[in-house]
Amino acid sequence: MTTIDAELRGRAEAVIPGGMYGHMDVRAFGDAHPQFMAGGDGCRITDVDGRTFLDFMCGWGPIVLGHRHPRVQEAVAAQQALGDCLNGGSPPMVELAELLVGTVAHADWAMLAKNGTDATTTCVTIARAATGRRRVLTARGAYHGAAPWCTPRDAGVLPEDRAHLRHFEYNDLDSLRAAVADAGDDLAAVVVCPFRHDLRRDQEPPDPAFAKGVRELCDATGAALVLDDVRAGFRLDLAGSWEPLGIRPDLSAWSKAIANGHALAAVTGSDRFRAGAERIYTTGSFWYSAAAMAAAIATITELRDTDALARIERAGTRLRAGLDAQARAHGFEVVQTGPVQMPVLRFAGDEDFALTRAWTDEAARRGVYLHPWHNWFMSAAHGDADIDDALERTDDAFAALARR
Amino acid sequence: MTTIDAELRGRAEAVIPGGMYGHMDVRAFGDAHPQFMAGGDGCRITDVDGRTFLDFMCGWGPIVLGHRHPRVQEAVAAQQALGDCLNGGSPPMVELAELLVGTVAHADWAMLAKNGTDATTTCVTIARAATGRRRVLTARGAYHGAAPWCTPRDAGVLPEDRAHLRHFEYNDLDSLRAAVADAGDDLAAVVVCPFRHDLRRDQEPPDPAFAKGVRELCDATGAALVLDDVRAGFRLDLAGSWEPLGIRPDLSAWSKAIANGHALAAVTGSDRFRAGAERIYTTGSFWYSAAAMAAAIATITELRDTDALARIERAGTRLRAGLDAQARAHGFEVVQTGPVQMPVLRFAGDEDFALTRAWTDEAARRGVYLHPWHNWFMSAAHGDADIDDALERTDDAFAALARR
Repeated sequence: MTTIDAELRGRAEAVIPGGMYGHMDVRAFGDAHPQFMAGGDGCRITDVDGRTFLDFMCGWGPIVLGHRHPRVQEAVAAQQALGDCLNGGSPPMVELAELLVGTVAHADWAMLAKNGTDATTTCVTIARAATGRRRVLTARGAYHGAAPWCTPRDAGVLPEDRAHLRHFEYNDLDSLRAAVADAGDDLAAVVVCPFRHDLRRDQEPPDPAFAKGVRELCDATGAALVLDDVRAGFRLDLAGSWEPLGIRPDLSAWSKAIANGHALAAVTGSDRFRAGAERIYTTGSFWYSAAAMAAAIATITELRDTDALARIERAGTRLRAGLDAQARAHGFEVVQTGPVQMPVLRFAGDEDFALTRAWTDEAARRGVYLHPWHNWFMSAAHGDADIDDALERTDDAFAALARR
Repeated sequence: MTTIDAELRGRAEAVIPGGMYGHMDVRAFGDAHPQFMAGGDGCRITDVDGRTFLDFMCGWGPIVLGHRHPRVQEAVAAQQALGDCLNGGSPPMVELAELLVGTVAHADWAMLAKNGTDATTTCVTIARAATGRRRVLTARGAYHGAAPWCTPRDAGVLPEDRAHLRHFEYNDLDSLRAAVADAGDDLAAVVVCPFRHDLRRDQEPPDPAFAKGVRELCDATGAALVLDDVRAGFRLDLAGSWEPLGIRPDLSAWSKAIANGHALAAVTGSDRFRAGAERIYTTGSFWYSAAAMAAAIATITELRDTDALARIERAGTRLRAGLDAQARAHGFEVVQTGPVQMPVLRFAGDEDFALTRAWTDEAARRGVYLHPWHNWFMSAAHGDADIDDALERTDDAFAALARR
């Protein structure tokens, strides 16, 4: 049935380690998901065999306005018609830094890069340069990138890469207090995601008292509060994902949705960490390229000046309510967690995710692209009719599961 | 005179640490180079004040066919019209991996990433995963990227980040033998550039006996020979920059020129290291994006099927001969080193590069973009008339220096 996908998988097996690597290896989570995609349009993607899917992964986050959003694509084309990878910065670099400083509540300055991992690593390096300390604390199980200091698999990674990395439990202030105490006068940074979005577990909103406690402990010790907003940034609150809690970080890492799919990452920081940022050396051949910055300006401006964020929330709310009703109607108990803009669903009691995966497989067979244990991503291109279209298909997926 | 550049520098000072960071901070090497560029076309770039320069930095390497090369831009536009950042790979990913395996002599497989640093770091991680060993050797002073394990400035970096990194002297087989012996049975990799292209020193071609010795020592110990072809790759020899020497690495890191300015990096490897590559976990949000891969296919195909590499060499040869004659005519002794495709010039005896920098400043004032102590990059867009245009201006720059 999916002959081109199968053919490409075979060819990839020969020339790509394992046929695919990283988070895009669909064999890790689906039997019915295509491995190779031909294109995308709005909230729909089409695989190499011409099958179209309602897309609820959005390129795993970057697509926040919808695939090939005209305003973003026009900005990219206009910049590419001038030049992209030049010697030095370009006007969009300054404009984007100003836009980030004007949009992100804690930001006094910004640096640009390419990967989320570039951004989290740069935050840690700045924190160490600024404080002269070594210890970094992250929540156990949290994902902060795929460099040796943070990658979730330890092949090829040395204990020394994490020599000064320690962990606390997300939303557990006592465990953070203990980790801070253990660091003594050597605490450089606490790195934390705006909510708990670890793989294979229910997502958890931040306990406001926990967020407040993180800020207070960083203030008391002089450590940097680093908010890893790579996954959630520009989807929940443009001012920063902890802004609704009134908690401002010292440094934030951004990527994914910042440029609606164009390769970009950013670090924003407060003036207290500006000198540290000036002292470190980090760079990349394409970190100054103008087209992705033009894309980011168009994306953030569109998010700021339209009801895009409200539409994302509306779409997520509609999807969650619909899935909840469908599950009950078919006799299933499901647990839906996370902000509706980045939802995930599991079947209650489904410890090994077998049932959840069977359902996301059935959904994929019916043209709905979902993930069984990683959060999904909603975009502003998901209108009511699109959600209803998806729900018609997921209802059928629940029915198929009920028939088993 | 350069009011827009000055205005942008002032604005950048407020919102970007230090006003600019990394290798694109022109204040580190020039008084007359613009900081902010408006665009590029072929071998020329234009700054924000409308001044046009013959470009001999080529975006610091990426631009190998010339700015906005039509074949590359058309490939990018065609892919962007379908989709770029999707869920999974795309046909260009498989095609590019096949093209790399068919083009790069040692390559049995390929992985794609975004930064040169991604590629060198991935090579080291694969080597450690495959060998189960820790020690990595690099040439003293060589640049392999800007992550904590390799960045040239130590602010924010810990000794543990380099706990198992040791050095040898480039082209000095005895020093390499000593470093290999010191590693004992813990040697994971020798990471080496195809020629010595360190900052602020004459470039040195690889001694063939040294390259052969690196290969033999890696064979004898089971360590990976990692060729860092990020800077030189796709400009000298498409099969790999050590292919003319008959020396094949186990792993190679590529970026810069691979996609004529579009953000991409690659690791290629031999079958011996395929299992190691399968075991590690590294990924990035934009590592699977299709447009940059389409750009790479167009770039490598153009380099392979046309006389582009010959034109690059011809341009470099013409420039070097012209500069040599000019220097002599004006009573200066200059030292030109490196392959003509990646040349650099210094004034003899100019220990602090003051005279060299004065000359590159004079050249910049006359519309020729050169660097005083980092190698330049030639492109296939540099025709005879362009080189002659540049030489007319550099002659004037030598004359200005002679008048002082």
